[in-house]
Amino acid sequence: MISQKEQFEKASGVMPGGVNSSTRFNKAIMMPFYVSDGKGSKVRGVDGKEYIDMCCAHGAGLLGNAHPAIDEALKKAAELGYVNAFETVWHEQLASLITETVACADKVRFCSSGSEATMHLIRACRGFTGKNKILRVEGHFHGYHELIYIGGHPPLSAFHSNRIKPYIESAGIPEEFSRLIIPLPFNDEEALEEAVEKNRDETALLILEPVNFNCAGIRASDSYLKLARKLTAENNIVLFFDEIQSAYKKSFGAAQNELGIVPDVTTIGKSIGGGLPLSAFCGKKEIMDCFSPVGNVQHSGTFNAHLIPVLAGLAFMQEASKPYFYKKLKSLEDQFHDGLNKIIADNDLNMVVPNYGARFNILLGRRYPANNYEETFCHNNKVFLNILKDCFERGVYFHDYGGGPSHHGYSVQHTQNDIDTVLNVLEEALINNRMNFSD
Amino acid sequence: MISQKEQFEKASGVMPGGVNSSTRFNKAIMMPFYVSDGKGSKVRGVDGKEYIDMCCAHGAGLLGNAHPAIDEALKKAAELGYVNAFETVWHEQLASLITETVACADKVRFCSSGSEATMHLIRACRGFTGKNKILRVEGHFHGYHELIYIGGHPPLSAFHSNRIKPYIESAGIPEEFSRLIIPLPFNDEEALEEAVEKNRDETALLILEPVNFNCAGIRASDSYLKLARKLTAENNIVLFFDEIQSAYKKSFGAAQNELGIVPDVTTIGKSIGGGLPLSAFCGKKEIMDCFSPVGNVQHSGTFNAHLIPVLAGLAFMQEASKPYFYKKLKSLEDQFHDGLNKIIADNDLNMVVPNYGARFNILLGRRYPANNYEETFCHNNKVFLNILKDCFERGVYFHDYGGGPSHHGYSVQHTQNDIDTVLNVLEEALINNRMNFSD
Repeated sequence: MISQKEQFEKASGVMPGGVNSSTRFNKAIMMPFYVSDGKGSKVRGVDGKEYIDMCCAHGAGLLGNAHPAIDEALKKAAELGYVNAFETVWHEQLASLITETVACADKVRFCSSGSEATMHLIRACRGFTGKNKILRVEGHFHGYHELIYIGGHPPLSAFHSNRIKPYIESAGIPEEFSRLIIPLPFNDEEALEEAVEKNRDETALLILEPVNFNCAGIRASDSYLKLARKLTAENNIVLFFDEIQSAYKKSFGAAQNELGIVPDVTTIGKSIGGGLPLSAFCGKKEIMDCFSPVGNVQHSGTFNAHLIPVLAGLAFMQEASKPYFYKKLKSLEDQFHDGLNKIIADNDLNMVVPNYGARFNILLGRRYPANNYEETFCHNNKVFLNILKDCFERGVYFHDYGGGPSHHGYSVQHTQNDIDTVLNVLEEALINNRMNFSD
Repeated sequence: MISQKEQFEKASGVMPGGVNSSTRFNKAIMMPFYVSDGKGSKVRGVDGKEYIDMCCAHGAGLLGNAHPAIDEALKKAAELGYVNAFETVWHEQLASLITETVACADKVRFCSSGSEATMHLIRACRGFTGKNKILRVEGHFHGYHELIYIGGHPPLSAFHSNRIKPYIESAGIPEEFSRLIIPLPFNDEEALEEAVEKNRDETALLILEPVNFNCAGIRASDSYLKLARKLTAENNIVLFFDEIQSAYKKSFGAAQNELGIVPDVTTIGKSIGGGLPLSAFCGKKEIMDCFSPVGNVQHSGTFNAHLIPVLAGLAFMQEASKPYFYKKLKSLEDQFHDGLNKIIADNDLNMVVPNYGARFNILLGRRYPANNYEETFCHNNKVFLNILKDCFERGVYFHDYGGGPSHHGYSVQHTQNDIDTVLNVLEEALINNRMNFSD
């Protein structure tokens, strides 16, 4: 056993910031959270302390830690010799399940990360249309790569210039890439119409999160989605739903199935690998068949669709298709949100907690869900980090994504007792910090 | 059981080309090779036929299929609950092993694919230097992404314009990005000097494979590497060795350790995960600490450095550090190359088979290793595909990468008997097709 601080120091000696992912540094505790093991709803720190896991692998861990279905998949993979970089019948079976459960999916491909998924699918949209510009929505997130890590989450100081000069979200991304990005305010039909009208001859795709988990859980309005569908269809622009986070979170399929708007292409994650590294992208046959060797858009990689995550993906699908699965998640959802909404009302807290299935966002500083990114600047990051810190100290792990109104959730292995504990801990933390929710 | 052809048809119905990686379509057999399982040096097709595996996961499978050390890692991962998206002591241990065995590595980060590794490290080079252009070498390969899948492997028809207008290697990559790429002929010191002189104020990095596995196994000459080191150091250009393929192939470390030239940064693959999806990038402290949260270059992702591949990586490292490991690989290397060189001499074949440790390239049409990409146009792709097809029909699986003089190899689980069989099969295939090695 070792203290969190000592492990942080050791790890920082060999890895920048002591982490393998910049956002694993948790500003609420001013260090990363180092873990020794996990079981079901719980994770244990390297110092031996146990926490209820409300990060759930940023949404990938819908099965929780150490699920028997995944254990079986790992055993099967070992028996099969995990033949890396070859295709198998299990790849085809998993692809078939996605075509059956995601509205737009005629064909599918798998890769490891969500970033890889959006990168390749954007390439296909460009190959398909012969155009290069990207219409994107502020507050939405589509991966940590040069194609689109631009213009999504400008800080307040850069917000007003974002639509003239899209904000580059990492050092090391050349300005050349930003010239292909057109940021739009969410749910603003006029702005969308104008942007399409002006850029239709150069625009390959309109990409958005139908549920904006990466900023305050904002929903697309029905009329906005209808307009997006209409304008893209009329102007040879691919409509791209990024469902890395929303797929399989509320039901056995994608959010698009419920929303009644079918995009042309979709990225699917993060829970489909049962907590292992697996993502997918899918869409209409004519676009997906742009990929080589059918078409001339490249999508290759030794580790694409490794057999172990693919078998874990099948295990996830089998588990999630059982009647108990979404019923259990729904009962946790009701318990959590009924409980939290009561806490909010009883204490007259200036906040709102939108959710979609088993994942939710905490937005401070307003009492109703936001409609766009700009409306979320009311969220007080500093107070929010204090809230998460208080929860951590009392055994509940919420991940921090820089203090923003981002997403948290639970797994099918969480219990009623877990949710009760989380509500108690959260209530105290909210009340302790209630003075300054609004920034 | 199902025939390869039937499985191809089924898979093509739900995945473009029936694959999850464009290059898994094998032109030698005009379909992908569908596998049911593997053990040691062998893989079995979905039709029940067994093959000696000379693909070895494109170089990731140095342990072969179904290795006991990896089986143990999978069991341990299950016991620990595979806590995805958290850092652990095993991450730090594996990073430490890389800093101890790779010359330039002060600090390390892990990700899933080689493409992710080069993408993030290029971003850091740009962040570090504040410059954007990339000096790259023809015939070298650095991942399937927009930053650098340009100018590497132009076909003959585009070769002569490549240095004026770098060849874009996939549809869907905007031309804007090619303006940041400066392709160079390998081992041409004058061209390198000229390019640095002309572009030093705009150039962030010089990237190359010290062993050019992705084209005919061409080696960098000592004086070329020395010059590269000198010019980059003098001009605030990061020297970037891509060792995704060369690391841990010949010895317990990277090729740079032997070559005596220490670059500033390096990507490490593909075998370090023991056949599971793991890559790394590393380098000098001042460059690696550009990554957030220390610096302002982003490298994030839920699935970065997943615990399962990290444990498999530790298992690989433990295995590869045992005295038998590289001794066994060396004896297979000697047996294979002595045998094959005898076949080449006895039959007066116009070909050469350069290797670096346990991986080799087959180049037709010349008797000595090439010095640069242009010299490999002698290789007759069509004849080469026929050779691989003949081998496949006789139970030896070589992967085809479009017919080019690319890489093949064996694992530590291959036996003397396997190598004897491969040599026999290869000899017959070479003699059957000996008429037209030169294109």
